[in-house]
Amino acid sequence: MTSNAALIARRNRTIGPYSPLFYTEPLQFVSASGVWLTEASGVRYLDGYNNVPHVGHTNERVVRAMHEQAATLNIHTRYLNERIVDYSEQLLATFAPKLDRVLYGNSGSEANELAIRIARQLTGATGIIVSDYSYHGTTITLAQLTTGLKTREPLGAHVRTLRIPDLDSDPRPESEVLAATLAELDAAIASLQEAGFGLSASLFDPLFSTEGMPRIPSGLVAGIVQRVRAAGGLVIADEVQSGFGRTGSHMWGHAATGMDPDLVTLGKPMGNGHPMSAVVTSEAVLDEFGSHNEFFNTFAANPVSAAVGEAVLQEMAAEQLQARAASLGAAARTRLEACAARYDFVRAAKGTGMFLGLDFAVDGAPAPELAKQVVEAMKARHVLISRIGRNESVLKVRPPLAFGAAELPLLLDALDDALSEI
Amino acid sequence: MTSNAALIARRNRTIGPYSPLFYTEPLQFVSASGVWLTEASGVRYLDGYNNVPHVGHTNERVVRAMHEQAATLNIHTRYLNERIVDYSEQLLATFAPKLDRVLYGNSGSEANELAIRIARQLTGATGIIVSDYSYHGTTITLAQLTTGLKTREPLGAHVRTLRIPDLDSDPRPESEVLAATLAELDAAIASLQEAGFGLSASLFDPLFSTEGMPRIPSGLVAGIVQRVRAAGGLVIADEVQSGFGRTGSHMWGHAATGMDPDLVTLGKPMGNGHPMSAVVTSEAVLDEFGSHNEFFNTFAANPVSAAVGEAVLQEMAAEQLQARAASLGAAARTRLEACAARYDFVRAAKGTGMFLGLDFAVDGAPAPELAKQVVEAMKARHVLISRIGRNESVLKVRPPLAFGAAELPLLLDALDDALSEI
Repeated sequence: MTSNAALIARRNRTIGPYSPLFYTEPLQFVSASGVWLTEASGVRYLDGYNNVPHVGHTNERVVRAMHEQAATLNIHTRYLNERIVDYSEQLLATFAPKLDRVLYGNSGSEANELAIRIARQLTGATGIIVSDYSYHGTTITLAQLTTGLKTREPLGAHVRTLRIPDLDSDPRPESEVLAATLAELDAAIASLQEAGFGLSASLFDPLFSTEGMPRIPSGLVAGIVQRVRAAGGLVIADEVQSGFGRTGSHMWGHAATGMDPDLVTLGKPMGNGHPMSAVVTSEAVLDEFGSHNEFFNTFAANPVSAAVGEAVLQEMAAEQLQARAASLGAAARTRLEACAARYDFVRAAKGTGMFLGLDFAVDGAPAPELAKQVVEAMKARHVLISRIGRNESVLKVRPPLAFGAAELPLLLDALDDALSEI
Repeated sequence: MTSNAALIARRNRTIGPYSPLFYTEPLQFVSASGVWLTEASGVRYLDGYNNVPHVGHTNERVVRAMHEQAATLNIHTRYLNERIVDYSEQLLATFAPKLDRVLYGNSGSEANELAIRIARQLTGATGIIVSDYSYHGTTITLAQLTTGLKTREPLGAHVRTLRIPDLDSDPRPESEVLAATLAELDAAIASLQEAGFGLSASLFDPLFSTEGMPRIPSGLVAGIVQRVRAAGGLVIADEVQSGFGRTGSHMWGHAATGMDPDLVTLGKPMGNGHPMSAVVTSEAVLDEFGSHNEFFNTFAANPVSAAVGEAVLQEMAAEQLQARAASLGAAARTRLEACAARYDFVRAAKGTGMFLGLDFAVDGAPAPELAKQVVEAMKARHVLISRIGRNESVLKVRPPLAFGAAELPLLLDALDDALSEI
């Protein structure tokens, strides 16, 4: 096995030194199974972070489906193939009846690009509203609306941002927070209209994951949807992080939060690591877009991706992963709330289902260094987690949904132990 | 097996009726091997069209590599993994020494997006020059510079187009064609500068595939490169169609035509159907981009994609596919030239290596209907080809590079037969 130092040197000379690595001392993994990753040294790590291997690393059902289809046929959609139709029927059955059509891509970026492209065409407007700390992908259009990480592109003139409030740290009464946020949205929409951009869409993660899983005022999501639609815009729900049963209570984040979208974008967990994504929408929207564009994506919707996507849905059903996320998530949330009660520097337990965190603050100020310390301390205990939020002060516990009852205490005990060390 | 009519009805209710299908009566394939596809009815078709399954449909080496790695580990690049470094070293070894860094994506669209994004950042300009009949992907930015198929987006104000001439149909002397084309380019660059956009890049397929494989004046590519660079722009070579040994003479189309790019984009054949793509560039360009952006692509550069890409390179070497493309391509070209000599309605044989065609014209006017007739007549003979070019009058013969000496006469005899029927 190549030493980390030697590998990093070769990595720097090929993909470059800017390709981000987790941890002060990066980890080199060589194999994985279920919710466990094995380092080059042989040490095993419990995966409390990765949502892409949704039904578990190297899941047997998914790998077998991929292998069988790849050994049989892999072709684009300009020839008929039943596999993608089978999968599409199964995928669409998980949505409300009005979301009855699907377009495929190869990444979350492609899905969000396509959703925005469709929204612009249908509305004739270009203005868009996103949260002021969010990330939706790597393309130029998406870089122009990225607010949650460093991009060289300035925010587009056609982009307005909305600050998603967090009642866990906002001292104002809930009703006041709600009114202020909706007033900010009204002003953003008016500003786009005055500038001549109009409103094409809002683009939000229904769980506001990158924002740090804020506890938002009741009625905020409904208020956003109502205002966006009244202004002629479409509602895009970015389910790249919040979808596929992650919330426990619902298959889709937008259903859990009542977002009622016109377009839903899917990515990361969809293929358990196989590059695939989708935009789910209605027949009317697809008709309008499809009839005005020759749209074709070479790789997307190939039968191998369809077989993989189908195996993910089957594995979720067979292992009841959404129900498991609900029950384990609730148990974990209870323990996290106990941590919040026990430690002064934990402001609040965050999240829902199997997307959880702890918000660190000292004297009312966000404490990103504490969060970083805990992430490294968890690594020392061979558990992978990360941190998020506008201040990077929120622990990000977002394991494969295949996370089990046996592993949960391992993660939470390690967290207790790490916190006691602070 | 589902009937075509029943499958189309289900397809229309899921992915919609706009998802394009080849042929008046579409084909439904259920399996494939090498250069042969098998229809639902059991009939086998010779694949003279598909370049994505580059080393052959369901290639054993590629499928095995994918399976082994998918059963071992599939993870993103924020942990160290040797597999992507191994592959990157092998891939970069096929480029000129100055092209020594690589960034990965999941599709040709993502690669072209990233190349343009980099070019814009490095130059501070947004102007771009493309050919007036070309296609580079599905995103908003790429739709704004699409000239070769229907998109609802108008051409961007920052986009200028260049007509790529074809000496096979242009009556003027070569030197006059060259001078006129370069003058058109000079005017395009001046226009971008006057409008305040400046020049960020030129974006061309080195073989001008979508344009119909024109026979261009000697010195045109060098003249384009010289002018683009003199105006401060970067040269992007889109190798999605022309790369990976397709020309026979060279691994890369830009090397075959002397394009000398700053950025090279790779796609379709790279993973033999597995969704993967890349931008190859220099250390200096990567340094400038990487140091100003947090750039990360979740799926890209995962070890499964790396294993697949490596298997494609290994298979190309083991089967000497580039050399085979050179020898078989030359033999095929000779037969196509004989067709051009024999039939009045064939204006010229087109292409190089294993990217070949025939240009149909009647009384000097392009004859797309004849090309369409031949494509359908070839289908009736169980051979897949297509057509391209600004008039859709050029046959597109672009088989998997695994096409063999045994299959070539089958294709060419079928073509002779189909032509004799016109």
